[in-house]
Amino acid sequence: MTTTSSRINRRFILAKRPQGMPTASDIVLENVPQDDPAPGQVLLRTLYLSLDPYMRGRMDDTPSYAPPLNIGDVIVGGTVSRVEQSRHPDYSPGELVLAYSGWQDYALSDGRDLHKLDPTMKHLPHALGLLGMPGFTGYMGLTDIGAPRAGETVVVAAASGAVGSVVGQVAKLRGARVVGIAGGEQKCRYVTDVLGFDACLDHRGNDLPGALNSACPDGIDVYFENVGGAVFDAVFPLLNTRARIPVCGMISQYNGPTGSVQHDRLPLLMGTILKKRMRVQGFIISQDYGEQYPAFYRQMSAWLDAGKIQFREDIVDGLENSVTAFQHLLSGKNFGKMIVRVAS
Amino acid sequence: MTTTSSRINRRFILAKRPQGMPTASDIVLENVPQDDPAPGQVLLRTLYLSLDPYMRGRMDDTPSYAPPLNIGDVIVGGTVSRVEQSRHPDYSPGELVLAYSGWQDYALSDGRDLHKLDPTMKHLPHALGLLGMPGFTGYMGLTDIGAPRAGETVVVAAASGAVGSVVGQVAKLRGARVVGIAGGEQKCRYVTDVLGFDACLDHRGNDLPGALNSACPDGIDVYFENVGGAVFDAVFPLLNTRARIPVCGMISQYNGPTGSVQHDRLPLLMGTILKKRMRVQGFIISQDYGEQYPAFYRQMSAWLDAGKIQFREDIVDGLENSVTAFQHLLSGKNFGKMIVRVAS
Repeated sequence: MTTTSSRINRRFILAKRPQGMPTASDIVLENVPQDDPAPGQVLLRTLYLSLDPYMRGRMDDTPSYAPPLNIGDVIVGGTVSRVEQSRHPDYSPGELVLAYSGWQDYALSDGRDLHKLDPTMKHLPHALGLLGMPGFTGYMGLTDIGAPRAGETVVVAAASGAVGSVVGQVAKLRGARVVGIAGGEQKCRYVTDVLGFDACLDHRGNDLPGALNSACPDGIDVYFENVGGAVFDAVFPLLNTRARIPVCGMISQYNGPTGSVQHDRLPLLMGTILKKRMRVQGFIISQDYGEQYPAFYRQMSAWLDAGKIQFREDIVDGLENSVTAFQHLLSGKNFGKMIVRVAS
Repeated sequence: MTTTSSRINRRFILAKRPQGMPTASDIVLENVPQDDPAPGQVLLRTLYLSLDPYMRGRMDDTPSYAPPLNIGDVIVGGTVSRVEQSRHPDYSPGELVLAYSGWQDYALSDGRDLHKLDPTMKHLPHALGLLGMPGFTGYMGLTDIGAPRAGETVVVAAASGAVGSVVGQVAKLRGARVVGIAGGEQKCRYVTDVLGFDACLDHRGNDLPGALNSACPDGIDVYFENVGGAVFDAVFPLLNTRARIPVCGMISQYNGPTGSVQHDRLPLLMGTILKKRMRVQGFIISQDYGEQYPAFYRQMSAWLDAGKIQFREDIVDGLENSVTAFQHLLSGKNFGKMIVRVAS
């Protein structure tokens, strides 16, 4: 196929590095002509774009687990995409794939970063949520590093979010007692009433350390760390001997330090890890657990079909609304996995 | 046996809690009459007493992995002891046992804390060193948590000491590149020339961070943490992605904080654990790995017999010299596993 199209690609590029919360002058929408695929390539149409906290880290010019974006780069992101044109032997027009096209309408791919989607998947956005990276992250971090036993106490921050909601529900399925932390009364009600956590605390309340202490009379055995900051500070004194802390994110620190502590607590943390024989371990789902995805997919699909797992999505219509949606995600205004519907 | 003896027991008790380095006014020698064993008990004669850094922690009135000593208690410690009298069916006079008699000539035991020593052991102090708690600690922490692969870089502080020397030699046997850190030129020469580490740095030198950077051109994959403080600070920026840090002690902090850092590095540490996907894990050998002792004993005995492991002891004669020997241990003046020969 060598048709010449006159497609226009809308794409968001990094115009300058954000200070704190990214704005529409940091992330700018461009319209550019879209090239047709070269031999060995496919042209992809973005249907759904996943918005995730890690994207904020990629906008800074500091070393992280992935190289920073350069000025002018398209903002990265996982997508559910449809093959529009194919000059690649393994792909045909109309096929649905999990891709990494980023914040744009179209992208070219040589196929190496694509995964064909299960054609029986009933709800495509699940590929970016419960059955995708966030669900996989929550499941593996909890089961492999956290490894809760029946009767143990698991604490999950951002409990109504894409990762936290999976962590807590899987911990309940393992027989643990689960305490969530979320922002606001509405989210907390959802966490206890719909997700089935034993308790949920509003981190906007007056005395989080005191409330957490009351909610965890037997201490904390597993803390799934995905927010950092004041929540970690409240959790820290309650950690039990042999506590496990899977570390998969620190959203509260992505927009810069907010700490008010003036002395160095690094020796305290290391001393506590020693005295309480704790395990603190960071992980990045794709690099550390990629080969376990099929097993996860089978297990989570079975739970989903059996009605044992709930998962809420916050779907925003229109690529042009991505910056606002991303701001909502970083400030906790979303309610459920944040996804942009780009086309259908 | 109901002989009445007029034995005198010399014992060291905690007279008051030390501020910083313990002195002879904190740890005081008493002479008291020694009771004979009651039914079900054995009377033990201490032959060798192990001196270890953890004892300092037990002298403080702060929660740790073991309850603190009370004022008036005999200082705890592992011993090689001989059964002098027995009213216990499982023990006979003359048998040698690993005991926990503490800093004294005699002790009574109901047998529950005793382990009969391998009668083929050629060198009794090994039961307190290479084949005892320190060797077991180094071996398990390195192999289970550190898990070095061939070609990786392992850094060990207190490299000439009882634990560190085992960590480094086992890492070499696993094919790793091993860099030790020790106090003074003599110890460093021993670490490279006798123990066979690839390099050893003197932490008393001017620029430990710079020297460590030069000695670890490929970064650090495993840091066996048993000192803390300035050594950790030098190691921290060099840690590689997926680095592992077994945490088994922080001797530099046992006598109180010495840090000069004025800002809070806890968020930095947690952020680094996330970004570099590190594993930081504390352990206490007896509680976490007790059931693996027989396998360790077989492996280490085989290496010892084959001449593949060197182990240096610093044996002080006379129970009365225990306080001075303990001070030497805490300030790094010992050279090898510190043991007091109490009787023969």
